[in-house]
Amino acid sequence: MLKVTPFLDHKSMLISTHYPVMVIGGAEDKVNGCGILTAFFKSAGGKMATIGIIPCASQEPSVVGDRYYQIFKGMGAQQVQILDIRQPKECDQDRWLDILANCTGVFVTGGDQLRLRDLIGGSRFMTSIKERIAQGELVLAGTSAGAAIVGERMIAGGSSGESPNQSLVDLTTGLGIFPELLVDQHFHNRNRMARLISAIAAHPDKLGIGIDEDTCAAFENDGTFEVLGQGTITIVDPGKLTHTNYRAATQSSPLSLHNLTVHVLSPGDRYDYQNRVVLS
Amino acid sequence: MLKVTPFLDHKSMLISTHYPVMVIGGAEDKVNGCGILTAFFKSAGGKMATIGIIPCASQEPSVVGDRYYQIFKGMGAQQVQILDIRQPKECDQDRWLDILANCTGVFVTGGDQLRLRDLIGGSRFMTSIKERIAQGELVLAGTSAGAAIVGERMIAGGSSGESPNQSLVDLTTGLGIFPELLVDQHFHNRNRMARLISAIAAHPDKLGIGIDEDTCAAFENDGTFEVLGQGTITIVDPGKLTHTNYRAATQSSPLSLHNLTVHVLSPGDRYDYQNRVVLS
Repeated sequence: MLKVTPFLDHKSMLISTHYPVMVIGGAEDKVNGCGILTAFFKSAGGKMATIGIIPCASQEPSVVGDRYYQIFKGMGAQQVQILDIRQPKECDQDRWLDILANCTGVFVTGGDQLRLRDLIGGSRFMTSIKERIAQGELVLAGTSAGAAIVGERMIAGGSSGESPNQSLVDLTTGLGIFPELLVDQHFHNRNRMARLISAIAAHPDKLGIGIDEDTCAAFENDGTFEVLGQGTITIVDPGKLTHTNYRAATQSSPLSLHNLTVHVLSPGDRYDYQNRVVLS
Repeated sequence: MLKVTPFLDHKSMLISTHYPVMVIGGAEDKVNGCGILTAFFKSAGGKMATIGIIPCASQEPSVVGDRYYQIFKGMGAQQVQILDIRQPKECDQDRWLDILANCTGVFVTGGDQLRLRDLIGGSRFMTSIKERIAQGELVLAGTSAGAAIVGERMIAGGSSGESPNQSLVDLTTGLGIFPELLVDQHFHNRNRMARLISAIAAHPDKLGIGIDEDTCAAFENDGTFEVLGQGTITIVDPGKLTHTNYRAATQSSPLSLHNLTVHVLSPGDRYDYQNRVVLS
C-alpha cells in the first residue's frame, strides 16, 4: 500500500474530501459537471491549487495538454502548467523538477502507456511525485494510459473479442505506485474482462481492477478507495483461486481460472484493497 | 435439474460420450473438424442417428436449415429432416410431431430467440422434446439463439459497451429446459459480461452462464456439464452475493454486485451446476 500521511498543507483547507491518488478509466466528463475532474481539482487545493499536466502519453501533447489547461483554469486553479516532456531523460531537468516541486496536483492524460512509462519511469521526477504524494503534499490523477501505469505490472495493450488467453494481453512493467494492483481501463466499454482475466492468470498475486469510462477509483490514505463517476469498477480477486491452467496453456489456448471473487462496484461504494473486502 | 435417465437405446451403441443437452455459444466450427457438431452427431447416434433441425429462430430458415442438413448428412446421419415451422401453432401438427417422434437428435439453430420461443414455446411439440430428453431417447443441441432459450429466464437482447445497468439487458421467459440457468452466448466475443451481470442482478436466484463462440456446455445426466470446443464458459454465481443495489437503481444507473463467484472454464473442465462447484 502507498503510505500517505494526512494532507495537512494549508492549501487543503478548502477540501472536503481529499484523494491522494485518483485512477480514472478514461473518457471522463469534460463538459457537463466534470464530476471527477472537479474532485481532483478540489483535492489539489481548489482555487489555491497549482496543477501540473503531464500529457506525455499522447502523441498530441500540446492539444491534449491545452484541453486540460483550459478546464483547470476554467475551474479557477491558481496556476496550471503543462509539463510537455518529450525525451526520456528530459524530465529530470531542473525546469521540470522545479515546476513539479510547486505543484499541489498532477494530472496525467491518456495516450499510450508505454510511451508515458518510457518518458517518466525510473526518473528522479517520478520518485519526487511518489515522495510528495506520500508526504501529503501532492495529489496525482491519471486517466486511461495515466491509469494503466499505476501498478507494478502494467497492461501495455492487447485485444478483445476472444476467450481469455495468454496472447490477449501484453504485460510489462508499470510505475509501481500501487504495486499490488493490475489496472485496466475503458473496461466494459471496450470489452476488456477477458484481457484482465488473462492478465490475472499471469499474475495471480495481483488484484485486478477494471475501471469503466468516466469512473474513478479515488484512493484515500487508509488502503481504501471510493468509486466516483458514472460507471462501475470491477474487482477481479484471485485470492481464492483454486486452479488455473496458465502454465500448461499455449499462447492462444483458452484459460481456466476457478474460484475468482468478483465485485462490481458502483459510485459511492468503497473497497479496502489491502484486506480485499468491500466496505459498503 | 433436468432428470435424464441413461441413454440405453440401441442407437447409442456407437457413442463414447453421451450428452443429453448441448448448449453452444454460437459460431461453432462448421468446416474444420466440426468438433462440437461431431460430438452432437455422435450423441444422437452417429450413423444411426435421425436428426431434426429446427431453424425457426432464423429469418432465413431454409438457408440455415439446409446448411446444417448438409453437415449432418455429410457426417453420415441415417436421416436428417428440417422442421421448418413458420407459425406458432403449426408445431403441434401431426406432420411435425411425427418427425420429432422419430428423431434421436434435435439441433436448434441461431437467429432470434424471441421468434424461436414464440414458435415452439408452450407447445406439445416442446413438451415432447423435454419428455424424450428425460427418457434418454433424444439429445438436444442449441446454438446461439438455440442456447439462449434453455433457461426459465431468457436474455432476449440488450446492449454492450456500457457499465452493468438494468437497461443493458432485456429479460423474458425462456423454454425452461434448465430452469436455474441464465445463459448468454457469443460471450467474450461480443462483450457480454456486463449484460450477464445485469441479468444476474435482476435474478440472483439464477446461475449465470456465458458461453463463448465455438464452445459448448455439454450436459450429462448427473447435474454436470463438460466444456467442449475452442473457447471458455464463464460462470457468474451469485450464491454468496452480499449486496446489490438493483432494487434501488434506476434503469440506467450503474449496478453494484458484491461477492460474486466467477469461474472461467476451458475445454475439458467439468462443472456441477447443481452444487455449484468446479469438478476439474
